[in-house]
Amino acid sequence: MLSPHLRERLAVLPDNDAAAVEAVHDRAANLLRPSGALAWLDEIAAWVAGWQRTATPAVDRPAALIFAGDHGVAAATKVSAYPTGITQALFDAYLEGRSTIAAFAKIAGASVSAIDVGIGRPTGDIRHEPALTDERFDEIVEIAFQAVAELDCDLLVLGEIGIGNTTPSAAIAAALAGGETAAWVGRGTGVDDDGLARKRAAVQESVRRIAGIIDPIEILRELGGSELVAVAAATVAARHRSIPVVLDGYVVTSAVLPLVMVNPAALDHCTVGHCSAEPGHRKLLERLGKRPLLDLDMRLGEGSGAMAAVPLVAMACAGVTEVPTYDEWFGR
Amino acid sequence: MLSPHLRERLAVLPDNDAAAVEAVHDRAANLLRPSGALAWLDEIAAWVAGWQRTATPAVDRPAALIFAGDHGVAAATKVSAYPTGITQALFDAYLEGRSTIAAFAKIAGASVSAIDVGIGRPTGDIRHEPALTDERFDEIVEIAFQAVAELDCDLLVLGEIGIGNTTPSAAIAAALAGGETAAWVGRGTGVDDDGLARKRAAVQESVRRIAGIIDPIEILRELGGSELVAVAAATVAARHRSIPVVLDGYVVTSAVLPLVMVNPAALDHCTVGHCSAEPGHRKLLERLGKRPLLDLDMRLGEGSGAMAAVPLVAMACAGVTEVPTYDEWFGR
Repeated sequence: MLSPHLRERLAVLPDNDAAAVEAVHDRAANLLRPSGALAWLDEIAAWVAGWQRTATPAVDRPAALIFAGDHGVAAATKVSAYPTGITQALFDAYLEGRSTIAAFAKIAGASVSAIDVGIGRPTGDIRHEPALTDERFDEIVEIAFQAVAELDCDLLVLGEIGIGNTTPSAAIAAALAGGETAAWVGRGTGVDDDGLARKRAAVQESVRRIAGIIDPIEILRELGGSELVAVAAATVAARHRSIPVVLDGYVVTSAVLPLVMVNPAALDHCTVGHCSAEPGHRKLLERLGKRPLLDLDMRLGEGSGAMAAVPLVAMACAGVTEVPTYDEWFGR
Repeated sequence: MLSPHLRERLAVLPDNDAAAVEAVHDRAANLLRPSGALAWLDEIAAWVAGWQRTATPAVDRPAALIFAGDHGVAAATKVSAYPTGITQALFDAYLEGRSTIAAFAKIAGASVSAIDVGIGRPTGDIRHEPALTDERFDEIVEIAFQAVAELDCDLLVLGEIGIGNTTPSAAIAAALAGGETAAWVGRGTGVDDDGLARKRAAVQESVRRIAGIIDPIEILRELGGSELVAVAAATVAARHRSIPVVLDGYVVTSAVLPLVMVNPAALDHCTVGHCSAEPGHRKLLERLGKRPLLDLDMRLGEGSGAMAAVPLVAMACAGVTEVPTYDEWFGR
């Protein structure tokens, strides 16, 4: 069976600390500000508290894991505005701290680790064959588990990089969420009309190829890519370490969609940093019942939209822990 | 004539540095990421560049000015969920760095100055009399001008605190933007149904009282409040120092509305940090053609929603200046 380790970890998921959630809700209701004034940010603080398992949530050591890989479908047919070789260039920029997310992370006080799970080692062309063999899939799962095990952080941003990877993302979304296939396909990094038509055709062909397969994890292996599998596995690993996760854009959201199809509670420890310009992303977020913190038309990937939301999560926590209650203030 | 100093400063406004805007646009189009991937954030970077008058915009020294005052209408009739005495308590919390915006500012790396322009010295009850005399109005304008003159910052957040101040804000919006008066009146900090009815009646009565007055600055004096006048004056002062401004919620937006009625370019150096839960705020922003960076249902005031957006503005700048262009990267 494909990936018993991932399945086993996904089958039994730890729950959050309900007492910590409750404590933050109680405190938030009595702070020296109009009741409910921070609305959703108070909810975010309670959510962080639940997964950090403390009544005093804080974002002091945020970290990002960015997984990178290449895609056979992008090498075989032009579904992206950029050649697949750009994946390596973008990855190198991460390593040297010159990427967009590195610039954002400096402001958010976060560390960034970029992990190559398949650059220059493209997946199968998903129109005609599985993206990954069982062995490659499991290998990537273990890399991601290991990466999360080595983290020292209190909030985790998950991101990806891989030229062409909105094509497998659209295929996963179409296969698992259904509806009009074309509605899941957008312009990604800005492909032209011809490219968009090719991309739609590629997604349709890929989804048709796997018709009959219903196991979401199998579908992830068939249609996904190295960095998508790594994101999914890292999400599960973070849950077992009770680390709250900020998800990034369309690719990351598609990557974790199979998880929630297997275990409906799989994304309870995840919030969504932003809604991207890719039209399928908003549809997926509605499907998942997740509200994005930001809505800025970004379409970069790299974890950048999630990183942009990190200061908000930090502020949500500080807004509960650092502000006195009316009793504390007037009784001081 | 009321406030010749404010009028004179508002009549002739310096423009931004168009070359700096252009330089950022050019650079943003060639960065090591898909073209246009940061969309609106690149626009924000160009906007900062224009007002900072540099091709390398940055947010290194953000500051907030929070003006506080009390309102006669709130003392005379219950239009707020909170007694006016709370204004002083909230202000004291600022001074001791225990306010919500102080918690946010620490994360944004910003300084916060809170300035009392009328706590315990309530404005006239705007249902029956002008909020401020000419003398008080001018006095507050000068305090705000002075406060901005003393700033050392590269981005300015403007906020306010004053129990009951969504009532004068709604009155200004109704008087200047027109339409159904009741549509400009929301629950503010959470007033109940009876309070909302009283608030609507108070706004209607106030707007009717000043029917016939068309000068927007006069209307600000008639219907506004100390902290609203200070916010408006500080906005003009920041323009003359070419400091980009992040506006906060409904009260701040109403306070600056008269400016744009006098000089349509008056808010070009302002962006909007967030859209609050107060229904009139979204309407006002549409009217002003301003898109908020955040949309989180906050309804706190204090500059908190604007401060929450400061890291995004900083990231927008870093995303242009710290990321290499393709030429810089491949030619390194």
